[in-house]
Amino acid sequence: MDVNEIKRIDKTVKGWLRESRDNVLRKIDTRLTVNTKSSRTDLVTNIDKQNEQFIVTKIREFDPDARILGEEGSGDEVDSVAGHVWIVDPIDGTMNFVKQRNHFAIMIALYIDGAGVLGYILDVMGNHLLSGGPALGVFDNGQPLEKAADTPLREGLVGLSGPMVLHDDYHMVNIANRSLGMRVYGSAGIDIISVLRGELVAYISYLKPWDFGAGKILCETAGLKVTTVDGQPLGMLSSTTVMLATRKAHRDILTIVGQ
Amino acid sequence: MDVNEIKRIDKTVKGWLRESRDNVLRKIDTRLTVNTKSSRTDLVTNIDKQNEQFIVTKIREFDPDARILGEEGSGDEVDSVAGHVWIVDPIDGTMNFVKQRNHFAIMIALYIDGAGVLGYILDVMGNHLLSGGPALGVFDNGQPLEKAADTPLREGLVGLSGPMVLHDDYHMVNIANRSLGMRVYGSAGIDIISVLRGELVAYISYLKPWDFGAGKILCETAGLKVTTVDGQPLGMLSSTTVMLATRKAHRDILTIVGQ
Repeated sequence: MDVNEIKRIDKTVKGWLRESRDNVLRKIDTRLTVNTKSSRTDLVTNIDKQNEQFIVTKIREFDPDARILGEEGSGDEVDSVAGHVWIVDPIDGTMNFVKQRNHFAIMIALYIDGAGVLGYILDVMGNHLLSGGPALGVFDNGQPLEKAADTPLREGLVGLSGPMVLHDDYHMVNIANRSLGMRVYGSAGIDIISVLRGELVAYISYLKPWDFGAGKILCETAGLKVTTVDGQPLGMLSSTTVMLATRKAHRDILTIVGQ
Repeated sequence: MDVNEIKRIDKTVKGWLRESRDNVLRKIDTRLTVNTKSSRTDLVTNIDKQNEQFIVTKIREFDPDARILGEEGSGDEVDSVAGHVWIVDPIDGTMNFVKQRNHFAIMIALYIDGAGVLGYILDVMGNHLLSGGPALGVFDNGQPLEKAADTPLREGLVGLSGPMVLHDDYHMVNIANRSLGMRVYGSAGIDIISVLRGELVAYISYLKPWDFGAGKILCETAGLKVTTVDGQPLGMLSSTTVMLATRKAHRDILTIVGQ
């Protein structure tokens, strides 16, 4: 796909995100309808569903032959990476959205034949958009992202999944202790923005494709490492542990995980 | 002290905070001089020190007979609560400030004969000020704070100290597991703002007087409970565990701590 076509798509998706953010903000003080999914901490609200429908409708109009993988089920069954695949997380960090009305993100990604083309993470309340891909580079609210320093684990803060720390999965306690401190934000999107901006040297969590689809594209474009927590390649359709990290922190964490 | 005198002080302190924030923002992209204090994670920078000197100078001009307790040593030795005692934390969350240039706070409190009169927590990058005290009420960027619901632990998110979770002090892992999720933000000021706004039902950490001086006044004024983690009263000069929580979450956490 040539770069002008990618720029055209980029401009279009940014328009959807602006409209989507406005829709969410307009309803943010209304009473939510909240339902649990797999457990009492896995939530979906009427706004997640409406926002996914809004974005899916926009994608279908714009790219009718594409398949869409959406968190809340208004997309398609996607079991192969062939062709255009859009990945949509209408509200990432739904628990934060429900309990805080803060610290949540809208995420969209476009993969073509399994290769990341464009990724978008919008911190809704912070009004902060990370966007881009290999053909364009990464942008932080429209400005080229300053490349984060390649900081090792012992000199940085690390973003972790709360449950992984509480269960000490993959030596998470040791990973936290070897860093300058752990942070737990409760939204993959918010954590990945922090890694991209150099505020965290790594983020580790159990994630679904819609949680990391955009972040994988943006982080790889920014020269960060993206794998499973034990260093395996990450398929765009995987539900697995994910580590996004500076090269040095990635190496440091793999050493601890392998112990 | 009559309410007009308190309003006069309030207006003055808000002016210091605006000027202090401008000073910090002007220097935020400069190279910091960072020194460690008690450990490799206990930091102080040239900006912490300059900002404390700025605030302490303002207080000395305004209230020359007061004593000042400051984190970075430009205040006085304060070993009794008599008279006017100002408590200053020029940069709360110095690790976040150094590593993220984000998620840190400036905090000021005024106690008279041990009673909280005025408290201020300014989220510098979010430009978000929580202010007030028993005579005025609590304000969120100048608007009366909406009273947070009295949510129990099992229905809320809980803000915890990273080290306390990693050492499982006072059954922190159990406390996190009984909640809807733990969050670790790395700045008492940012956590306490979240409790005041109802985004967290509790915050627990080991704190020094400058970490909780303002928060204790604001939370008590807002009807929240403020004690040590095992429910003891909190002296304004204590260095101890601190729990700031809704009444229901406070009761729930005490039950777990006492097990």
